[in-house]
Amino acid sequence: MSKKLNICEIFGPTIQGEGAMMGRPTLFVRTGGCDYRCSWCDTMYAVDPKHSDQWQRMTTEEVMAEIERLSDQTPMHVTLSGGNPAMQPLEDLIDLGHSKGYQFALETQGSLARDWFKKLDQLTLSPKGPSAGVKTDWDVLDACVDLVEPYKQASMKVVIFDDADYAFAQKVQNRYPQLPLYLQAGNHMVDSNAPADIPGVLDRLRWLAEKVASDRWQSACVLPQLHVLAWGNMRGA
Amino acid sequence: MSKKLNICEIFGPTIQGEGAMMGRPTLFVRTGGCDYRCSWCDTMYAVDPKHSDQWQRMTTEEVMAEIERLSDQTPMHVTLSGGNPAMQPLEDLIDLGHSKGYQFALETQGSLARDWFKKLDQLTLSPKGPSAGVKTDWDVLDACVDLVEPYKQASMKVVIFDDADYAFAQKVQNRYPQLPLYLQAGNHMVDSNAPADIPGVLDRLRWLAEKVASDRWQSACVLPQLHVLAWGNMRGA
Ligand code: SF4
Ligand code: SF4
Repeated sequence: MSKKLNICEIFGPTIQGEGAMMGRPTLFVRTGGCDYRCSWCDTMYAVDPKHSDQWQRMTTEEVMAEIERLSDQTPMHVTLSGGNPAMQPLEDLIDLGHSKGYQFALETQGSLARDWFKKLDQLTLSPKGPSAGVKTDWDVLDACVDLVEPYKQASMKVVIFDDADYAFAQKVQNRYPQLPLYLQAGNHMVDSNAPADIPGVLDRLRWLAEKVASDRWQSACVLPQLHVLAWGNMRGA
Repeated sequence: MSKKLNICEIFGPTIQGEGAMMGRPTLFVRTGGCDYRCSWCDTMYAVDPKHSDQWQRMTTEEVMAEIERLSDQTPMHVTLSGGNPAMQPLEDLIDLGHSKGYQFALETQGSLARDWFKKLDQLTLSPKGPSAGVKTDWDVLDACVDLVEPYKQASMKVVIFDDADYAFAQKVQNRYPQLPLYLQAGNHMVDSNAPADIPGVLDRLRWLAEKVASDRWQSACVLPQLHVLAWGNMRGA
């Protein structure tokens, strides 16, 4: 009997909207629960236990069955997200999925270092800048990076709202020069019941692009959130 | 005395808005002249000889001096674009820039195969689908691909407006499975004197993303044009 996983939602196929895998087809497994409370969190329904009545306790086999159903039994790419998916025992799911030909990416803030990160096909570490109002434990983030050091498909992603976040991202770059760094223009309107402020989002994208360009920060990569542009704040897209 | 180059504009630093290098700081050297006349060309001012009074005949050394001025003499990434930059003798510029530490990407439709493509740091081949109203010479495109075959940083980019373009992109993928393929949602409003139709552009992005996701076309990558989102149709951004 495998351990139960806290699952908020499983959906797709859709397109990855962020970071290194932007634009590529994937399924999403969103776990419930997070050790952070970021001020601009866009998935509070997967964070705050007050929404936990909408989460399900599922076995590895049940999650895999749903992945196979959504993908018509044809192996494809799966993104493990949250909340903080590092809080869930996902190693068995990765092993089971791999045995069936599926690939797995995981995105986490890097507040919990799990040995099984080594098994992932892609890992995105997304430490949170000052605007999030949470504190980065650099030692744990170091431990996450140490796990993936020999591993080529790991990257850092920092959401940028302001100059303080930008300085934070520069610190991340200096500390982990070996990892590609994605700078994501922040979305300030994250209510999934309200329309996204697309002009506002694009204003921030322009501001960030102009800043990186004029600084000629050659190793940075400025990206929007493709899913917010295409589908707004709609859940499950 | 080096050969003269037809130069439409040199600008930056800005952020690359398309394809494999999306989001990264770069300078643009846009050459004048093109052997195609795509219906939806967004740089007709670099294509139609009626604009050639705005182009300049410049030596390699003059272009390099402008690149160095714009980059404050600090080596950075340069994108050679057009028009069709393959019509210009750019080999000396690439050699001279490399000797000073600059990197060069080039984007062309692949209608002219140049031996010096081998010297590029990145090459984007962007054959045009049916909506462009031009004809792809597959033998020449094959020759371009043969030049870059051992070279890792080459990719294909196809602009998609409709189902026929999508089918064309699938043909490109099947013919050149070794090259990463970027599917770019088309921009139907390309008048640089009129505002871009951002909602329309985002509608096409959503349509394309949903199509690729439901087809689970795993090797495709759906991207918007970041510069159109950030700056609209403004020239020199
Ligand atoms: S770490 Fe992520 S999921 Fe958790 S609160 Fe912050 S933004 Fe939300
Ligand atoms: S190949 Fe490019 S520059 Fe030439 S006409 Fe077509 S879109 Fe315009």
